[in-house]
Order: sequence, then C-alpha cells, then structure tokens
Amino acid sequence: MHKLVLMRHGQSQWNLENRFTGWVDVDLTEQGRQEAQKAGELLRTQGYQFDLAYTSVLKRAIHTLWITLDAIDQDWLPVRKSWRLNERHYGALQGLNKSETAEKYGEKQVLIWRRSYDIRPGALEKDSPMWPGKDPRYADIPEAEIPACECLKDTVARVIPFWEESIKPEVASGKRVLIAAHGNSLRALIKHLDGISDEDIAGLNIPTAQPLVYEFDDDMKPIRHYYLGNQEEIAKAIAAVAAQGKAKN
Amino acid sequence: MHKLVLMRHGQSQWNLENRFTGWVDVDLTEQGRQEAQKAGELLRTQGYQFDLAYTSVLKRAIHTLWITLDAIDQDWLPVRKSWRLNERHYGALQGLNKSETAEKYGEKQVLIWRRSYDIRPGALEKDSPMWPGKDPRYADIPEAEIPACECLKDTVARVIPFWEESIKPEVASGKRVLIAAHGNSLRALIKHLDGISDEDIAGLNIPTAQPLVYEFDDDMKPIRHYYLGNQEEIAKAIAAVAAQGKAKN
Repeated sequence: MHKLVLMRHGQSQWNLENRFTGWVDVDLTEQGRQEAQKAGELLRTQGYQFDLAYTSVLKRAIHTLWITLDAIDQDWLPVRKSWRLNERHYGALQGLNKSETAEKYGEKQVLIWRRSYDIRPGALEKDSPMWPGKDPRYADIPEAEIPACECLKDTVARVIPFWEESIKPEVASGKRVLIAAHGNSLRALIKHLDGISDEDIAGLNIPTAQPLVYEFDDDMKPIRHYYLGNQEEIAKAIAAVAAQGKAKN
Repeated sequence: MHKLVLMRHGQSQWNLENRFTGWVDVDLTEQGRQEAQKAGELLRTQGYQFDLAYTSVLKRAIHTLWITLDAIDQDWLPVRKSWRLNERHYGALQGLNKSETAEKYGEKQVLIWRRSYDIRPGALEKDSPMWPGKDPRYADIPEAEIPACECLKDTVARVIPFWEESIKPEVASGKRVLIAAHGNSLRALIKHLDGISDEDIAGLNIPTAQPLVYEFDDDMKPIRHYYLGNQEEIAKAIAAVAAQGKAKN
C-alpha cells in the first residue's frame, strides 16, 4: 500500500483579502503560518514521516511546506520545487477582489471564471508587471508555454505530466511523498486520480492546510482518501472555500 | 568571472551554550535567526541573486538558508541538501561544554581536538543515540563510511569530492551559487580553494552568518575573497570564534 499526502497552503494575504492570486507570489498571513504549524503537528502526532516532498515555486506553498517539515523534524527532507504545481494562472483577474468582481460582473460570471473547466478569464498582457516571462524562476519554460491565463483544463495539462513523470514513479517505488501546493493544482491532480468528470470537478473545494491522505494499491490505483484531523472543522473549511465567489451582503 | 557565496549558519542553541555540536541537529537561537535575517538583507541591498543553493542536512544551516532566501525573495530557488556539507562530526565530544572540557582536559588538549588537522577526538559508540546510522537522513551513506568521529582531514575527504563533482561544475557553468553550511565544512572547502597548509588552517576562523564571497577566473582559479558588511564587526566575530576553546576565567 502506497500513501501520498496532499496539502493546500495556509491562508495567504490575498486569501484574507479575498483577491484572485494565481501566480502572484503572496506570502502567508500569521493565521496561515499557524494553520501550517497545526497541520505539521497533526502529522507528527500521527507518526507521519516522508522520504521526499514537492512544492510549487510560490512562497505561500513553500513556507507551508517549510513549517510542516520543521514540525515533523524533517527539515532535511529533499524538496523538489516546480512551477507545474503552481496555482492556476488567473490572468487579468489577478489582484482583483472576488466579491467586488462578483458585484461588477455578477456572481454567475465569477463562478464561471472560478469553476468552469474550460473557459479562461481574460489574459495578462505581455507588458504587465505580472507577466511570468520576466521572472527568472520561469526561465526554463519555453516562451510559447508561459501561461498568460489558465482555465482548470490548462492547469490539468501541465500538472498531470509532472505527476506521471516525476511524482507517481516515486510513490510507486515506495517513497512516502508530501505535496504542498495550491487549491487548483491539487484539484487538477485529484480530478485525474479519482477520474472526476469535467462537470463534477466544479463542486470540489479544498480547505487550506488540511493534510489529505491518498492510499494506492500496488498498481497505483487509488483505494481511498481522507482528511486527517477534526472532520467537522474540515467540513466548515470546505464550505467557506465554496462561498468565496459570492458578492458581499 | 564566477562568484560563489559561502555562509556559516547563525548562532545555534549549542553555540550559545558553548557545547560541541557536530552532527547533533540543534536549532538556531533567536539571535541566530536575526543574524541570518541581517545577512539576507545585506545580500539583498547589494543586489545578490542566485541560481542554486546548497546546504547540509542539519536544521541550523537549513534555517539560515531559508531565512536568507526569504530576505532576498528567492524562496523558490532550487536547494540541494547533502550530509557532505554537515559540520565536522565531533564524536564523543558532542554535547560537552567547551570550557568545561578545557578545565578537565586542559586548553591545549581542547585546542588539539578543535584545530588539529589529523587528530580525532574519541569516537561515538554504535549504541549511542547520537550514532548517525540510526537516522533515516543518512540511509544513503554506506555503513562503513558513516563517521563516528572526524578530524578536519576526514571532513576535507568528504567535502571536496562533493565540491568537485557537484558544486564546482555548476559555478563553472555560470550559475550563481550560495552555500549555507558550518564552521568546519566551510574551513575544509576554503583550505582546498586557497591551498592552505595543514598547519595554517588551524588559524582560520569563520564568523556566523557573514556572507563570504569568492571570485574565480574562467579556469575556476580563486582570484580573491572578501566578507560583505562591516569589516570591524567581522574581525570581532572572528576573534570570538577563536576564543571558544578557552577555560572560563
């Protein structure tokens, strides 16, 4: 039996401000750091140890991982960082407040941008300061593949090859792997693992900094998955994520 | 011209308590974290950015690196951790207070253990809880090569192959490399880089968390080296390291 632990980063400054973040490199809030600490302590008390960790090239996921590794006394663990685990690129929506955007364009339109599988929001212009082509961390991506905006389908298209070629073989070989990443890169992975349809994936919401355990058989077929920790708290956290695109009352 | 930045970790809990640390995985003190922060800010204000970082598998060096990377906004940088950059293994001295050891065995004997090139202190027994063979982070080292104690010559013997095979080719290829490591793994590297004799290396002391820049020509011959920052503070810090083996007055 093979185990994989997935974790969305703790609350970021723009989660707190309810803004679309995407590839903007926003840090954790103090609450986000505490959530990561709590997740790490939960893993520690349940005896979790790992052989390898993956994360994105965005600091809210990296710091969540660092805090978790320190809590389980595995600061020394090898860590692979990849842009392929980054949050979905939110294009021209990056920086905008989700409620204000809902007031301006309607909740229905925001829900389409947030949860439609294959409709992209507007793209970033190449002269935007947020254009990833100017950032050295993305120097290895061929310019034609640098996203200016993604729908979830686009995110799936860059997450799954990384899962298949880099992460899955490690899990299959018996390594205990931890992934600290983002709401939509994890939704992309889970859609693939559980064979969730393009329609049904819209209803999947992932709470911040709650360790989500996947168990696989020897053929790397998922057997079951579950969140560690208090199930009532987790249900509330999931409902809160689902409500983020609503206009303020 | 190629540049390499070396940094010894900030003050650790056992630096503060003046105890021999070696491979014991002691954390930074609050002062140590502040030193790392200050070093990171110094690198930032001088415009330093890197392509790759190396550190040991000990958290005092890893945390020094993490704090530094955050200060220069390069949390995303690829990091390679290796036991070959660990502190010298101090064998049976690990955990002992340096001043008390000097009172018991004499300052001369402690200076021999601290600074002799090829005399090892007593070895750890394999049933010691500090024996590295029980620790999963060292699972990849063949048991015959797991140190129970090292003199600096032993440290040189495991640091230099790693420099030659892993780090040096990266620097030579044009990558800007940062190494966060330990007093003796850095002394081992510097001895090699500058061709310092077995006798003269005894006089080389490295202050904590002060960025030390090495410049190389195209044949990877060192041209010059210098500490960034306030030169008077650095001279004082070097003198303090040299004085650590003295019995208390």
